[in-house]
Amino acid sequence: MQILLSNMACISMKSSMNWGWMATGKKQMNQNNALPDIAAFLKSQDTLTLFCHVRPDGDTLGSAFGLMDLLESLGKRVKVLCADPVSPRYRFLSGGRADLLGTPEGALVCIDIAAPDMAGAYAAFAKQADLVIDHHATNPYFGKWNYIDAAAGATGEILVDLAEELGPLSPRAAAAFYTAIATDTGCFKYGNTTRATHLKAARLMETEFDVAALNRWLFQTKSQAEFEINRLAMETLRFYAGGRIVTMLISREMLLQTAAGADELESISSLPIQIEGAVVAATFKEAEPGQYKVSLRTNGLLDGGKICALFGGGGHRMAAGCSMRGAYETLEACMVKTLRQELEKVQ
Amino acid sequence: MQILLSNMACISMKSSMNWGWMATGKKQMNQNNALPDIAAFLKSQDTLTLFCHVRPDGDTLGSAFGLMDLLESLGKRVKVLCADPVSPRYRFLSGGRADLLGTPEGALVCIDIAAPDMAGAYAAFAKQADLVIDHHATNPYFGKWNYIDAAAGATGEILVDLAEELGPLSPRAAAAFYTAIATDTGCFKYGNTTRATHLKAARLMETEFDVAALNRWLFQTKSQAEFEINRLAMETLRFYAGGRIVTMLISREMLLQTAAGADELESISSLPIQIEGAVVAATFKEAEPGQYKVSLRTNGLLDGGKICALFGGGGHRMAAGCSMRGAYETLEACMVKTLRQELEKVQ
Repeated sequence: MQILLSNMACISMKSSMNWGWMATGKKQMNQNNALPDIAAFLKSQDTLTLFCHVRPDGDTLGSAFGLMDLLESLGKRVKVLCADPVSPRYRFLSGGRADLLGTPEGALVCIDIAAPDMAGAYAAFAKQADLVIDHHATNPYFGKWNYIDAAAGATGEILVDLAEELGPLSPRAAAAFYTAIATDTGCFKYGNTTRATHLKAARLMETEFDVAALNRWLFQTKSQAEFEINRLAMETLRFYAGGRIVTMLISREMLLQTAAGADELESISSLPIQIEGAVVAATFKEAEPGQYKVSLRTNGLLDGGKICALFGGGGHRMAAGCSMRGAYETLEACMVKTLRQELEKVQ
Repeated sequence: MQILLSNMACISMKSSMNWGWMATGKKQMNQNNALPDIAAFLKSQDTLTLFCHVRPDGDTLGSAFGLMDLLESLGKRVKVLCADPVSPRYRFLSGGRADLLGTPEGALVCIDIAAPDMAGAYAAFAKQADLVIDHHATNPYFGKWNYIDAAAGATGEILVDLAEELGPLSPRAAAAFYTAIATDTGCFKYGNTTRATHLKAARLMETEFDVAALNRWLFQTKSQAEFEINRLAMETLRFYAGGRIVTMLISREMLLQTAAGADELESISSLPIQIEGAVVAATFKEAEPGQYKVSLRTNGLLDGGKICALFGGGGHRMAAGCSMRGAYETLEACMVKTLRQELEKVQ
């Protein structure tokens, strides 16, 4: 991270950017610029490119397109770029476009991008970011200007504050920021939902948009393929240790039969841990024949990240993953054995 | 409704209640008392009974037990009564009790009860209610004191305002009111969620309780029976009119096989309307052999209430129901034919 920052310093010397924080001498390592200063920086630019992270979700897209709307209202030329396609669920944000490829120009802004690599094919541009706005705790403050708030449930929450500095919210921008916040917090369900999250949702709802229809689209609409893959996966549930361990299989046959895409598989790994009594759930997705991506979910009692590390993977306590190769029955038995051992340590 | 109100007037003349609104002469038909006056009334009572409606949900129970907590802090003797059992999901509110039966005493308060009959076996007491707090638009203001706010997403929202008058919120009361609000709004998803709903959630979260764990319990925990009945029901999905009409069957065999109870069937009728493209979904539950309860859900394009009225039922535009007797294949064909006709009228 230090190497990255010193590289950034080199670039900075050559750039003609207005480094407000150098002039005031207030900027320290990993310290945020003030939002009014960031707003002033954005207002000083004529052309801007906003980058979203790969496998774009509602937070990166909603935050970027909401900001685009605000900046366009100020007469700026703005484009949003993303190296990966936009899933059908979020294309209402991008005006129907699945493809957000193009040539970056003007000021480079990274939105909800935890590290330059998360910009995928645009990583080289992300490394030169003029501004980074994000809520991931691991963000190395890789922009010339930065605003990172790990307490925010979504990057969209930061954008609501920034919008106060940039001018009136259109219904379109409000809906985009609402999408960002609602999707990253599981519609205000997950542990990252704070008082501020609710206050910002209330603030956005001062601007009129059809929040009920938006919620229906985001949280209560599933494709037939998603319904079908969920049903098939639920047939494969197996329970061990009195129901405390649950396993689930998504075979290649099931994927081919339903034609379910990545979008339709997004939340399937979270299903088995919802079963009452489950402490840990392992979902095996057969990515290639005999090659499985294993998603571990825990109720917090076990550390899924540590368990996945035993298999060369990693992640968080409650959500982690690893890859395994072999016959399903063998791999499942191996994982269950490990999970039993881990359970015995804590119970 | 007028008859009911004049009956109430007769009762009132015989009672020794302090009818604040008669004294001030400010009370008009279907007008709310002021919350400070309602708080003063509650403070003037030593013993109170809070009634919940039959088939108690999170709103009636959360509102009642949260208010109980506030009133007990003020030294009052309080009991919560409900004619129907409390489902396992909500027993944390009632201190583990499934049974809230007992003898009413003191001031009679109806919580989230739209009409006296909704108190079930306690209807006679509800008819003499000293105070009614509710958010159903159809409420005939059947209490001596009333606070009905149809704009509130949940009765729990009204209680948050009343709590401001009654003293500090314990974490227990805050969690109870949060339960009331979150369950009635589908965790801030449904169309009854307003700015005020979010502001009140934020207010409750000033009092520390484990909101993430509470949300997991309320919205992300399903019994094995619920998982299994969902899976079996999804196997019965049939699509008509290019997927705009969907039907689903929950047979007696499926109910017996899974031992799913009412609690586990609560949300199942809402599943098929979530399928992308569905305009109307009909779920047939075989209550008795050859006797079906049909739940209709629409995306708003068709009026489910009017369609169910054709079969002797009724309800709202987006959620309605009726009863049908006969062989499933015949009943389903009949319903699908009707739905096709209704679709043709609007498309």
